[in-house]
Amino acid sequence: MEKLSIIKIGGNIIEDEASLNAFLKLFSNLEGKKILVHGGGKRATHIASKLGIESKMVNGRRITDAETLEVITMVYGGLVNKNVVAKLQAMGTDAIGLTGADINSIQSDKRPVKEIDFGFVGDVKKVANNSIDKLIKADFTPVFCAITHDGKGQLLNTNADTITSTIAVGMSELYDTSIYYCFELNGVLQDFDDKDSVIKHIDSKTYQQLLKDEVISDGMIPKLDNCFDALHNGVQKVHIGNTSMLTKENELFTTITL
Amino acid sequence: MEKLSIIKIGGNIIEDEASLNAFLKLFSNLEGKKILVHGGGKRATHIASKLGIESKMVNGRRITDAETLEVITMVYGGLVNKNVVAKLQAMGTDAIGLTGADINSIQSDKRPVKEIDFGFVGDVKKVANNSIDKLIKADFTPVFCAITHDGKGQLLNTNADTITSTIAVGMSELYDTSIYYCFELNGVLQDFDDKDSVIKHIDSKTYQQLLKDEVISDGMIPKLDNCFDALHNGVQKVHIGNTSMLTKENELFTTITL
Repeated sequence: MEKLSIIKIGGNIIEDEASLNAFLKLFSNLEGKKILVHGGGKRATHIASKLGIESKMVNGRRITDAETLEVITMVYGGLVNKNVVAKLQAMGTDAIGLTGADINSIQSDKRPVKEIDFGFVGDVKKVANNSIDKLIKADFTPVFCAITHDGKGQLLNTNADTITSTIAVGMSELYDTSIYYCFELNGVLQDFDDKDSVIKHIDSKTYQQLLKDEVISDGMIPKLDNCFDALHNGVQKVHIGNTSMLTKENELFTTITL
Repeated sequence: MEKLSIIKIGGNIIEDEASLNAFLKLFSNLEGKKILVHGGGKRATHIASKLGIESKMVNGRRITDAETLEVITMVYGGLVNKNVVAKLQAMGTDAIGLTGADINSIQSDKRPVKEIDFGFVGDVKKVANNSIDKLIKADFTPVFCAITHDGKGQLLNTNADTITSTIAVGMSELYDTSIYYCFELNGVLQDFDDKDSVIKHIDSKTYQQLLKDEVISDGMIPKLDNCFDALHNGVQKVHIGNTSMLTKENELFTTITL
Protein backbone atom coordinates (compact mmCIF):
# COMPACT_ATOMS: atom_id res chain seq x y z
CA MET A 1 0.00 0.00 0.00
CA GLU A 2 1.07 3.56 -0.68
CA LYS A 3 2.14 5.66 2.31
CA LEU A 4 0.02 8.47 3.77
CA SER A 5 1.15 10.85 6.52
CA ILE A 6 -1.35 12.67 8.73
CA ILE A 7 0.19 15.61 10.57
CA LYS A 8 -1.50 17.41 13.44
CA ILE A 9 -0.44 20.82 14.72
CA GLY A 10 -1.81 22.58 17.76
CA GLY A 11 -2.56 26.11 18.81
CA ASN A 12 0.99 27.04 19.77
CA ILE A 13 2.17 26.73 16.15
CA ILE A 14 -0.95 28.37 14.68
CA GLU A 15 -0.68 31.43 16.90
CA ASP A 16 2.86 32.43 16.05
CA GLU A 17 3.26 33.62 12.43
CA ALA A 18 6.97 32.69 12.25
CA SER A 19 6.42 29.18 13.74
CA LEU A 20 3.48 28.62 11.40
CA ASN A 21 5.45 29.64 8.31
CA ALA A 22 8.41 27.48 9.34
CA PHE A 23 6.14 24.50 9.95
CA LEU A 24 4.26 24.94 6.66
CA LYS A 25 7.60 24.95 4.81
CA LEU A 26 8.47 21.58 6.43
CA PHE A 27 4.99 20.23 5.68
CA SER A 28 5.15 21.45 2.09
CA ASN A 29 8.53 19.74 1.57
CA LEU A 30 7.35 16.46 3.08
CA GLU A 31 7.31 13.79 0.38
CA GLY A 32 4.34 11.61 -0.44
CA LYS A 33 0.61 11.85 0.18
CA LYS A 34 -0.31 13.86 3.25
CA ILE A 35 -3.12 15.44 5.26
CA LEU A 36 -2.88 18.34 7.71
CA VAL A 37 -5.12 18.73 10.77
CA HIS A 38 -4.95 21.96 12.77
CA GLY A 39 -6.40 23.13 16.04
CA GLY A 40 -7.42 26.71 16.60
CA GLY A 41 -5.51 28.01 19.53
CA LYS A 42 -6.31 31.01 21.64
CA ARG A 43 -7.36 33.14 18.68
CA ALA A 44 -10.97 32.00 19.05
CA THR A 45 -10.95 32.97 22.74
CA HIS A 46 -9.54 36.42 21.91
CA ILE A 47 -12.10 37.10 19.20
CA ALA A 48 -14.93 35.74 21.36
CA SER A 49 -13.95 38.08 24.18
CA LYS A 50 -13.73 41.03 21.74
CA LEU A 51 -17.26 40.15 20.62
CA GLY A 52 -18.37 40.11 24.26
CA ILE A 53 -18.87 36.34 24.33
CA GLU A 54 -17.73 34.79 27.58
CA SER A 55 -15.72 31.56 27.40
CA LYS A 56 -17.49 29.13 29.69
CA MET A 57 -15.35 26.40 31.20
CA VAL A 58 -16.55 23.46 33.31
CA ASN A 59 -13.85 21.32 34.95
CA GLY A 60 -11.30 22.95 32.66
CA ARG A 61 -13.24 22.12 29.50
CA ARG A 62 -14.78 24.60 27.15
CA ILE A 63 -18.55 24.69 26.72
CA THR A 64 -19.55 25.39 23.11
CA ASP A 65 -22.79 27.36 23.12
CA ALA A 66 -24.33 28.66 19.87
CA GLU A 67 -22.38 31.92 19.96
CA THR A 68 -19.09 30.16 20.71
CA LEU A 69 -19.70 27.74 17.83
CA GLU A 70 -20.13 30.75 15.50
CA VAL A 71 -16.78 32.13 16.61
CA ILE A 72 -15.09 28.73 16.20
CA THR A 73 -16.58 28.38 12.71
CA MET A 74 -15.29 31.86 11.81
CA VAL A 75 -11.83 31.45 13.31
CA TYR A 76 -10.97 27.78 12.69
CA GLY A 77 -12.96 27.26 9.48
CA GLY A 78 -12.36 30.72 7.99
CA LEU A 79 -9.46 32.75 9.32
CA VAL A 80 -6.98 30.01 10.26
CA ASN A 81 -7.88 27.37 7.66
CA LYS A 82 -8.01 29.69 4.64
CA ASN A 83 -4.79 31.48 5.55
CA VAL A 84 -3.02 28.12 5.95
CA VAL A 85 -4.35 27.06 2.54
CA ALA A 86 -3.21 30.33 0.87
CA LYS A 87 0.25 29.98 2.45
CA LEU A 88 0.57 26.35 1.29
CA GLN A 89 -0.49 27.32 -2.24
CA ALA A 90 2.31 29.93 -2.24
CA MET A 91 4.73 27.09 -1.36
CA GLY A 92 3.51 24.93 -4.25
CA THR A 93 1.27 22.57 -2.25
CA ASP A 94 -2.17 22.25 -3.84
CA ALA A 95 -4.06 22.50 -0.55
CA ILE A 96 -7.82 22.32 0.02
CA GLY A 97 -9.33 23.45 3.32
CA LEU A 98 -12.08 21.35 4.87
CA THR A 99 -14.41 20.98 7.79
CA GLY A 100 -16.08 17.63 8.41
CA ALA A 101 -19.17 19.01 6.61
CA ASP A 102 -17.29 19.42 3.32
CA ILE A 103 -17.77 16.30 1.15
CA ASN A 104 -19.42 14.89 4.30
CA SER A 105 -15.90 13.90 5.33
CA ILE A 106 -16.43 13.59 9.10
CA GLN A 107 -19.82 12.99 10.68
CA SER A 108 -20.28 13.28 14.42
CA ASP A 109 -22.95 12.88 17.04
CA LYS A 110 -23.64 15.84 19.30
CA ARG A 111 -22.32 14.78 22.69
CA PRO A 112 -25.21 13.60 24.88
CA VAL A 113 -25.95 15.73 27.94
CA LYS A 114 -25.04 13.86 31.14
CA GLU A 115 -23.65 15.69 34.18
CA ILE A 116 -22.32 18.42 31.88
CA ASP A 117 -23.90 19.92 28.75
CA PHE A 118 -20.90 20.55 26.50
CA GLY A 119 -23.15 22.23 23.93
CA PHE A 120 -22.29 21.96 20.23
CA VAL A 121 -19.49 19.42 20.63
CA GLY A 122 -19.24 16.40 18.35
CA ASP A 123 -18.00 12.87 18.95
CA VAL A 124 -16.82 11.43 15.64
CA LYS A 125 -19.02 8.70 14.18
CA LYS A 126 -17.93 8.18 10.57
CA VAL A 127 -15.07 9.19 8.29
CA ALA A 128 -15.77 9.18 4.54
CA ASN A 129 -12.40 7.71 3.59
CA ASN A 130 -13.35 7.15 -0.05
CA SER A 131 -14.47 10.76 -0.50
CA ILE A 132 -11.28 12.06 1.14
CA ASP A 133 -9.33 9.70 -1.12
CA LYS A 134 -10.91 11.28 -4.22
CA LEU A 135 -9.22 14.55 -3.21
CA ILE A 136 -5.90 12.82 -2.54
CA LYS A 137 -6.09 10.92 -5.84
CA ALA A 138 -6.70 14.27 -7.57
CA ASP A 139 -3.36 15.41 -6.06
CA PHE A 140 -4.96 17.82 -3.60
CA THR A 141 -3.67 18.05 -0.02
CA PRO A 142 -6.54 18.15 2.51
CA VAL A 143 -6.23 20.62 5.39
CA PHE A 144 -8.79 19.89 8.12
CA CYS A 145 -9.85 22.22 10.91
CA ALA A 146 -11.42 20.91 14.11
CA ILE A 147 -15.07 21.18 13.04
CA THR A 148 -17.40 18.33 12.06
CA HIS A 149 -21.15 18.10 11.38
CA ASP A 150 -24.06 15.88 12.33
CA GLY A 151 -25.41 15.35 8.80
CA LYS A 152 -28.57 17.24 9.74
CA GLY A 153 -27.21 20.71 9.10
CA GLN A 154 -25.47 21.29 12.44
CA LEU A 155 -21.74 22.07 12.65
CA LEU A 156 -20.00 20.71 15.77
CA ASN A 157 -16.79 21.66 17.58
CA THR A 158 -14.57 18.55 17.72
CA ASN A 159 -11.23 17.72 19.34
CA ALA A 160 -8.40 17.98 16.78
CA ASP A 161 -6.45 14.98 18.18
CA THR A 162 -9.55 12.81 17.84
CA ILE A 163 -10.17 14.08 14.29
CA THR A 164 -6.58 13.17 13.45
CA SER A 165 -6.75 9.63 14.80
CA THR A 166 -10.17 8.87 13.32
CA ILE A 167 -9.16 10.16 9.87
CA ALA A 168 -6.00 8.04 10.19
CA VAL A 169 -7.98 4.92 11.12
CA GLY A 170 -10.35 5.52 8.19
CA MET A 171 -7.56 6.11 5.70
CA SER A 172 -5.61 3.06 6.93
CA GLU A 173 -8.04 0.90 4.92
CA LEU A 174 -6.58 2.52 1.79
CA TYR A 175 -3.03 3.55 2.74
CA ASP A 176 -0.11 2.58 4.93
CA THR A 177 -0.97 5.41 7.35
CA SER A 178 1.24 7.19 9.91
CA ILE A 179 0.32 9.95 12.32
CA TYR A 180 2.64 12.79 13.36
CA TYR A 181 1.44 14.66 16.46
CA CYS A 182 3.48 17.87 16.60
CA PHE A 183 3.64 19.59 19.98
CA GLU A 184 6.00 21.76 22.00
CA LEU A 185 8.10 18.91 23.49
CA ASN A 186 10.67 16.73 21.70
CA GLY A 187 8.63 13.61 22.38
CA VAL A 188 7.46 11.48 25.28
CA LEU A 189 9.99 12.15 28.03
CA GLN A 190 11.62 9.72 30.46
CA ASP A 191 12.25 12.61 32.83
CA PHE A 192 9.85 15.53 32.51
CA ASP A 193 12.57 17.97 33.68
CA ASP A 194 15.01 16.90 30.96
CA LYS A 195 13.65 17.91 27.57
CA ASP A 196 16.17 15.69 25.75
CA SER A 197 15.24 12.51 27.65
CA VAL A 198 13.04 11.38 24.78
CA ILE A 199 11.82 7.78 24.79
CA LYS A 200 12.56 6.93 21.17
CA HIS A 201 10.29 3.92 20.84
CA ILE A 202 7.23 2.75 22.69
CA ASP A 203 5.27 -0.42 21.93
CA SER A 204 2.38 -2.09 23.77
CA LYS A 205 4.74 -4.00 26.03
CA THR A 206 7.06 -1.13 26.97
CA TYR A 207 4.00 1.13 27.43
CA GLN A 208 2.64 -1.19 30.12
CA GLN A 209 6.03 -1.11 31.83
CA LEU A 210 6.24 2.71 31.61
CA LEU A 211 2.77 2.96 33.16
CA LYS A 212 3.74 0.54 35.93
CA ASP A 213 6.92 2.51 36.63
CA GLU A 214 4.88 5.74 36.62
CA VAL A 215 7.25 7.29 34.07
CA ILE A 216 4.45 8.68 31.91
CA SER A 217 2.79 11.83 33.22
CA ASP A 218 -0.95 11.99 33.78
CA GLY A 219 -1.52 14.40 30.90
CA MET A 220 0.26 12.12 28.45
CA ILE A 221 -1.74 8.96 29.31
CA PRO A 222 -4.98 9.81 27.40
CA LYS A 223 -2.83 10.96 24.44
CA LEU A 224 -0.96 7.63 24.38
CA ASP A 225 -4.12 5.58 24.94
CA ASN A 226 -5.57 7.37 21.92
CA CYS A 227 -2.41 6.47 19.90
CA PHE A 228 -2.71 2.77 20.80
CA ASP A 229 -6.40 2.86 19.88
CA ALA A 230 -5.42 4.13 16.43
CA LEU A 231 -2.70 1.46 16.11
CA HIS A 232 -5.13 -1.29 17.13
CA ASN A 233 -7.48 -0.05 14.40
CA GLY A 234 -5.12 -0.16 11.44
CA VAL A 235 -2.73 2.80 11.74
CA GLN A 236 0.89 1.70 11.17
CA LYS A 237 2.88 4.17 13.28
CA VAL A 238 2.35 7.20 15.48
CA HIS A 239 5.10 9.80 15.98
CA ILE A 240 5.11 12.38 18.75
CA GLY A 241 7.57 15.27 18.83
CA ASN A 242 8.18 18.81 17.73
CA THR A 243 7.71 19.90 14.13
CA SER A 244 11.36 19.23 13.22
CA MET A 245 10.60 15.49 13.32
CA LEU A 246 9.27 16.06 9.77
CA THR A 247 12.86 16.63 8.60
CA LYS A 248 15.32 13.80 8.09
CA GLU A 249 17.99 15.56 10.21
CA ASN A 250 16.14 15.29 13.51
CA GLU A 251 15.91 11.81 15.01
CA LEU A 252 14.85 12.94 18.48
CA PHE A 253 11.15 12.07 18.71
CA THR A 254 8.97 9.22 19.93
CA THR A 255 7.74 6.49 17.60
CA ILE A 256 4.85 4.36 18.79
CA THR A 257 3.95 0.98 17.32
CA LEU A 258 1.92 -1.99 18.50
CA MET B 1 -21.19 18.96 -23.98
CA GLU B 2 -22.74 18.23 -20.61
CA LYS B 3 -24.66 21.06 -18.95
CA LEU B 4 -23.35 23.00 -15.94
CA SER B 5 -25.33 25.61 -13.99
CA ILE B 6 -23.62 28.31 -11.96
CA ILE B 7 -25.94 29.98 -9.48
CA LYS B 8 -25.10 33.18 -7.63
CA ILE B 9 -26.96 34.40 -4.56
CA GLY B 10 -26.46 37.72 -2.83
CA GLY B 11 -26.54 39.05 0.68
CA ASN B 12 -30.33 39.40 0.94
CA ILE B 13 -30.80 35.61 0.70
CA ILE B 14 -27.83 34.80 2.94
CA GLU B 15 -29.01 37.07 5.73
CA ASP B 16 -32.47 35.64 6.18
CA GLU B 17 -32.46 32.07 7.55
CA ALA B 18 -35.85 31.19 6.03
CA SER B 19 -34.95 32.58 2.57
CA LEU B 20 -31.61 30.78 2.68
CA ASN B 21 -33.18 27.44 3.60
CA ALA B 22 -35.84 27.83 0.90
CA PHE B 23 -33.21 28.69 -1.70
CA LEU B 24 -30.90 25.82 -0.70
CA LYS B 25 -33.82 23.41 -1.10
CA LEU B 26 -34.32 24.68 -4.68
CA PHE B 27 -30.60 24.52 -5.37
CA SER B 28 -30.36 21.01 -3.94
CA ASN B 29 -33.25 19.81 -6.13
CA LEU B 30 -31.78 21.35 -9.29
CA GLU B 31 -30.82 18.59 -11.70
CA GLY B 32 -27.40 18.23 -13.28
CA LYS B 33 -23.92 19.52 -12.45
CA LYS B 34 -23.91 22.79 -10.56
CA ILE B 35 -21.81 25.34 -8.69
CA LEU B 36 -22.98 27.84 -6.07
CA VAL B 37 -21.39 31.26 -5.52
CA HIS B 38 -22.47 33.35 -2.54
CA GLY B 39 -21.83 36.89 -1.40
CA GLY B 40 -21.56 37.76 2.26
CA GLY B 41 -24.15 40.38 2.98
CA LYS B 42 -24.27 42.73 5.90
CA ARG B 43 -23.15 40.10 8.41
CA ALA B 44 -19.50 41.06 7.87
CA THR B 45 -20.32 44.73 8.53
CA HIS B 46 -22.16 43.80 11.74
CA ILE B 47 -19.34 41.64 13.05
CA ALA B 48 -16.71 44.21 12.03
CA SER B 49 -18.56 46.90 13.95
CA LYS B 50 -18.89 44.61 17.01
CA LEU B 51 -15.11 44.10 16.82
CA GLY B 52 -14.64 47.87 16.69
CA ILE B 53 -13.52 47.87 13.05
CA GLU B 54 -14.91 50.79 11.11
CA SER B 55 -16.23 50.11 7.61
CA LYS B 56 -14.46 52.58 5.33
CA MET B 57 -16.30 53.55 2.17
CA VAL B 58 -14.97 55.70 -0.68
CA ASN B 59 -17.47 56.74 -3.37
CA GLY B 60 -19.85 54.11 -2.03
CA ARG B 61 -17.27 51.31 -2.29
CA ARG B 62 -15.85 49.39 0.61
CA ILE B 63 -12.14 49.63 1.37
CA THR B 64 -10.69 46.29 2.50
CA ASP B 65 -7.90 46.97 4.98
CA ALA B 66 -6.09 44.11 6.77
CA GLU B 67 -8.60 44.00 9.64
CA THR B 68 -11.59 44.06 7.30
CA LEU B 69 -10.06 41.23 5.24
CA GLU B 70 -9.80 39.16 8.45
CA VAL B 71 -13.49 39.72 9.16
CA ILE B 72 -14.44 38.85 5.57
CA THR B 73 -12.34 35.68 5.74
CA MET B 74 -14.04 34.73 9.00
CA VAL B 75 -17.59 35.55 7.90
CA TYR B 76 -17.65 34.63 4.19
CA GLY B 77 -15.09 31.81 4.26
CA GLY B 78 -16.05 30.41 7.68
CA LEU B 79 -19.45 31.26 9.08
CA VAL B 80 -21.52 31.62 5.90
CA ASN B 81 -19.74 29.11 3.66
CA LYS B 82 -19.52 26.27 6.19
CA ASN B 83 -23.12 26.66 7.34
CA VAL B 84 -24.30 26.58 3.71
CA VAL B 85 -22.24 23.42 3.15
CA ALA B 86 -23.65 21.73 6.28
CA LYS B 87 -27.22 22.63 5.25
CA LEU B 88 -26.67 21.27 1.70
CA GLN B 89 -25.22 18.05 3.11
CA ALA B 90 -28.39 17.65 5.19
CA MET B 91 -30.38 17.95 1.94
CA GLY B 92 -28.32 15.24 0.25
CA THR B 93 -26.08 17.50 -1.86
CA ASP B 94 -22.43 16.54 -1.47
CA ALA B 95 -21.17 20.14 -1.16
CA ILE B 96 -17.60 21.35 -0.74
CA GLY B 97 -16.90 24.92 0.38
CA LEU B 98 -14.12 26.84 -1.34
CA THR B 99 -12.29 30.12 -1.54
CA GLY B 100 -10.16 30.88 -4.61
CA ALA B 101 -7.13 29.73 -2.59
CA ASP B 102 -8.45 26.17 -2.24
CA ILE B 103 -7.07 23.98 -5.07
CA ASN B 104 -5.75 27.32 -6.40
CA SER B 105 -9.16 27.66 -8.05
CA ILE B 106 -9.23 31.45 -8.56
CA GLN B 107 -6.09 33.56 -8.70
CA SER B 108 -6.33 37.35 -8.61
CA ASP B 109 -4.12 40.39 -8.76
CA LYS B 110 -4.36 42.86 -5.90
CA ARG B 111 -6.03 45.91 -7.42
CA PRO B 112 -3.36 48.51 -8.24
CA VAL B 113 -3.52 51.75 -6.26
CA LYS B 114 -4.60 54.65 -8.49
CA GLU B 115 -6.80 57.47 -7.15
CA ILE B 116 -8.20 55.09 -4.54
CA ASP B 117 -6.43 52.37 -2.56
CA PHE B 118 -9.08 49.66 -2.29
CA GLY B 119 -6.78 47.62 -0.06
CA PHE B 120 -6.93 43.81 -0.18
CA VAL B 121 -9.25 43.57 -3.17
CA GLY B 122 -8.55 41.16 -6.02
CA ASP B 123 -9.23 41.38 -9.75
CA VAL B 124 -9.57 37.84 -11.10
CA LYS B 125 -6.70 36.66 -13.30
CA LYS B 126 -7.05 32.92 -13.71
CA VAL B 127 -9.63 30.20 -13.04
CA ALA B 128 -8.31 26.64 -12.64
CA ASN B 129 -11.15 25.03 -14.59
CA ASN B 130 -9.51 21.59 -14.69
CA SER B 131 -9.00 21.52 -10.94
CA ILE B 132 -12.60 22.61 -10.32
CA ASP B 133 -13.68 19.93 -12.78
CA LYS B 134 -11.91 17.25 -10.74
CA LEU B 135 -14.31 18.08 -7.89
CA ILE B 136 -17.33 18.07 -10.21
CA LYS B 137 -16.24 14.78 -11.79
CA ALA B 138 -15.96 13.34 -8.27
CA ASP B 139 -19.67 14.27 -7.82
CA PHE B 140 -18.96 17.08 -5.37
CA THR B 141 -20.85 20.38 -5.62
CA PRO B 142 -18.50 23.37 -5.24
CA VAL B 143 -19.74 26.28 -3.09
CA PHE B 144 -17.60 29.39 -3.57
CA CYS B 145 -17.45 32.42 -1.33
CA ALA B 146 -16.23 35.79 -2.59
CA ILE B 147 -12.57 35.41 -1.62
CA THR B 148 -9.64 34.73 -3.96
CA HIS B 149 -5.84 34.73 -3.49
CA ASP B 150 -2.77 36.09 -5.26
CA GLY B 151 -0.78 32.83 -5.27
CA LYS B 152 1.78 34.41 -2.95
CA GLY B 153 -0.07 33.70 0.29
CA GLN B 154 -2.41 36.69 0.30
CA LEU B 155 -6.19 36.27 0.41
CA LEU B 156 -8.18 38.96 -1.45
CA ASN B 157 -11.76 40.20 -1.20
CA THR B 158 -13.39 39.80 -4.63
CA ASN B 159 -16.75 40.74 -6.13
CA ALA B 160 -19.09 37.73 -6.17
CA ASP B 161 -20.68 38.64 -9.54
CA THR B 162 -17.23 38.74 -11.13
CA ILE B 163 -16.25 35.43 -9.52
CA THR B 164 -19.44 33.91 -10.95
CA SER B 165 -18.87 35.13 -14.50
CA THR B 166 -15.16 34.24 -14.56
CA ILE B 167 -15.80 30.73 -13.20
CA ALA B 168 -18.53 30.37 -15.85
CA VAL B 169 -16.21 31.51 -18.64
CA GLY B 170 -13.51 29.08 -17.43
CA MET B 171 -15.92 26.16 -17.12
CA SER B 172 -17.45 26.88 -20.56
CA GLU B 173 -14.38 25.24 -22.11
CA LEU B 174 -15.56 21.98 -20.54
CA TYR B 175 -19.34 22.32 -20.20
CA ASP B 176 -22.38 23.92 -21.81
CA THR B 177 -22.46 26.56 -19.06
CA SER B 178 -25.35 28.74 -17.88
CA ILE B 179 -25.35 31.41 -15.20
CA TYR B 180 -28.28 32.15 -12.87
CA TYR B 181 -27.99 35.49 -11.06
CA CYS B 182 -30.55 35.41 -8.26
CA PHE B 183 -31.59 38.77 -6.85
CA GLU B 184 -34.60 40.44 -5.26
CA LEU B 185 -36.38 41.39 -8.54
CA ASN B 186 -38.18 39.09 -10.97
CA GLY B 187 -35.77 39.97 -13.75
CA VAL B 188 -34.74 42.93 -15.89
CA LEU B 189 -37.79 45.22 -15.84
CA GLN B 190 -39.34 47.19 -18.69
CA ASP B 191 -40.88 49.54 -16.14
CA PHE B 192 -39.02 49.79 -12.84
CA ASP B 193 -42.28 50.55 -10.97
CA ASP B 194 -43.99 47.40 -12.24
CA LYS B 195 -42.27 44.36 -10.76
CA ASP B 196 -44.02 42.03 -13.22
CA SER B 197 -42.87 43.92 -16.35
CA VAL B 198 -40.04 41.43 -16.86
CA ILE B 199 -38.24 41.50 -20.21
CA LYS B 200 -38.20 37.76 -20.89
CA HIS B 201 -35.40 37.70 -23.43
CA ILE B 202 -32.53 40.03 -24.22
CA ASP B 203 -29.93 39.51 -26.93
CA SER B 204 -27.15 41.76 -28.24
CA LYS B 205 -29.48 43.47 -30.68
CA THR B 206 -32.41 44.10 -28.32
CA TYR B 207 -29.92 45.20 -25.63
CA GLN B 208 -28.66 48.00 -27.86
CA GLN B 209 -32.25 49.07 -28.48
CA LEU B 210 -33.08 48.99 -24.75
CA LEU B 211 -30.03 51.15 -24.04
CA LYS B 212 -30.99 53.58 -26.78
CA ASP B 213 -34.55 53.81 -25.44
CA GLU B 214 -33.15 54.30 -21.91
CA VAL B 215 -35.30 51.43 -20.62
CA ILE B 216 -32.46 49.87 -18.62
CA SER B 217 -31.64 51.60 -15.34
CA ASP B 218 -28.13 52.83 -14.58
CA GLY B 219 -27.51 50.20 -11.90
CA MET B 220 -28.41 47.37 -14.27
CA ILE B 221 -26.07 48.43 -17.10
CA PRO B 222 -22.76 47.18 -15.59
CA LYS B 223 -24.54 43.92 -14.59
CA LEU B 224 -25.74 43.38 -18.16
CA ASP B 225 -22.41 44.42 -19.70
CA ASN B 226 -20.82 41.79 -17.46
CA CYS B 227 -23.37 39.20 -18.73
CA PHE B 228 -22.57 39.96 -22.37
CA ASP B 229 -18.86 39.74 -21.59
CA ALA B 230 -19.43 36.21 -20.25
CA LEU B 231 -21.55 35.30 -23.30
CA HIS B 232 -18.86 36.62 -25.67
CA ASN B 233 -16.35 34.41 -23.86
CA GLY B 234 -18.12 31.09 -24.14
CA VAL B 235 -21.02 31.08 -21.65
CA GLN B 236 -24.23 29.83 -23.30
CA LYS B 237 -26.96 31.64 -21.39
CA VAL B 238 -27.37 34.03 -18.48
CA HIS B 239 -30.56 34.14 -16.42
CA ILE B 240 -31.52 36.98 -14.09
CA GLY B 241 -34.44 36.75 -11.67
CA ASN B 242 -35.47 35.73 -8.21
CA THR B 243 -34.61 32.31 -6.80
CA SER B 244 -37.87 30.73 -7.98
CA MET B 245 -36.48 30.78 -11.55
CA LEU B 246 -34.71 27.57 -10.50
CA THR B 247 -38.08 25.81 -10.46
CA LYS B 248 -39.88 24.73 -13.59
CA GLU B 249 -43.12 26.41 -12.47
CA ASN B 250 -41.86 29.99 -12.68
CA GLU B 251 -41.27 31.34 -16.17
CA LEU B 252 -41.04 34.99 -15.15
CA PHE B 253 -37.32 35.84 -15.40
CA THR B 254 -34.91 37.30 -17.95
CA THR B 255 -32.82 35.10 -20.23
CA ILE B 256 -29.85 36.72 -21.94
CA THR B 257 -28.12 35.26 -25.00
CA LEU B 258 -25.83 36.68 -27.66
